[in-house]
Amino acid sequence: MAQQLEPIARMVAQLARLPSIGQKSAQRLAYHIISMPLEDVKELASALYQGRKAIRYCQCCGNYATGDLCNICQDENRRNGQICVVRDPRDVAAIERMRDFGGTYHVLHGTLSPMEGIGPGDIRIKELMVRLEDDSIKEVILATNPDIEGEATASYIARLVKPMGLLVTRIAHGVPVGSDLEYTDEITLAKAMEGRREM
Amino acid sequence: MAQQLEPIARMVAQLARLPSIGQKSAQRLAYHIISMPLEDVKELASALYQGRKAIRYCQCCGNYATGDLCNICQDENRRNGQICVVRDPRDVAAIERMRDFGGTYHVLHGTLSPMEGIGPGDIRIKELMVRLEDDSIKEVILATNPDIEGEATASYIARLVKPMGLLVTRIAHGVPVGSDLEYTDEITLAKAMEGRREM
Repeated sequence: MAQQLEPIARMVAQLARLPSIGQKSAQRLAYHIISMPLEDVKELASALYQGRKAIRYCQCCGNYATGDLCNICQDENRRNGQICVVRDPRDVAAIERMRDFGGTYHVLHGTLSPMEGIGPGDIRIKELMVRLEDDSIKEVILATNPDIEGEATASYIARLVKPMGLLVTRIAHGVPVGSDLEYTDEITLAKAMEGRREM
Repeated sequence: MAQQLEPIARMVAQLARLPSIGQKSAQRLAYHIISMPLEDVKELASALYQGRKAIRYCQCCGNYATGDLCNICQDENRRNGQICVVRDPRDVAAIERMRDFGGTYHVLHGTLSPMEGIGPGDIRIKELMVRLEDDSIKEVILATNPDIEGEATASYIARLVKPMGLLVTRIAHGVPVGSDLEYTDEITLAKAMEGRREM
């Protein structure tokens, strides 16, 4: 059998390293890219490399930025006294898509995980505490994921922040909108019952 | 709402142009790429662009090549008198994976399609006829797809080649190995019956 050409094999190997792209998809993508005009491939490659190169972390909140501060930290109107704490920048993007939150963020870049040896010093908790020294901050919203590490991280931060006299809140757990009770796991259902409100 | 950063938006837009990558997958991939070390992204981008740049068409058969001739046309041992005609280079790759065919290929780069205005002059039929002037060629295997255009193309080439006194064959249609008769369409089943052999 003729070997796959080296440039194609290299392309496939690189594409197959991306998440949710297996060997077969990588092959299909590689053949598609080879059939594209060279100029278009140049644009694609440059969007990836130059894009990656242009992105750094906001010096204030840790979100993605192209300068020292991210768009949100630069925006005076976003300083409403609320800081929403999340695990990583894609959580910021998710909450921003909701178009409802008017405060700023703090990105931890991880969650506490004794199993993986990630302690408080390994995520951006110290930077959060420094930001909370600003008197204009009134509320810290803990929006880490509703999993074991996310809950542990939220509890840890709540214990640190509460003594400072700030309002500390946690996003609600419950039944996702549009979902079916029948297929909701028991822990989520229990949390939904526990968090019920008068109508 | 804060706008998505321009470098990320550009990355998403470029990725979403690839086949079977929708907006959501493109977002997920873009965020993954941003979280990759810059060196790794450089390797990925370079594999795509340099890979595309390195690939050209074999001057003999039309398959992908890095030089004037592809690996298969360069290989003396592959000159066994058989030429397998396919639509495009990925069909060559598919047949090569079978590790069973010992001849050379001819890639048409398309199939006849009156609907799309693709006539015999638009695909590499003339180049095939030139190759068939070589006396060492004994058999032309038509391995275009078993669809309307593929069949029409195979018939057209068969009519041209047969008068030259060469053996012209068509790959068998039938029930795919490992498939279920119950779910096989009637036309395939009819072809499988028609092509039955004594055991």
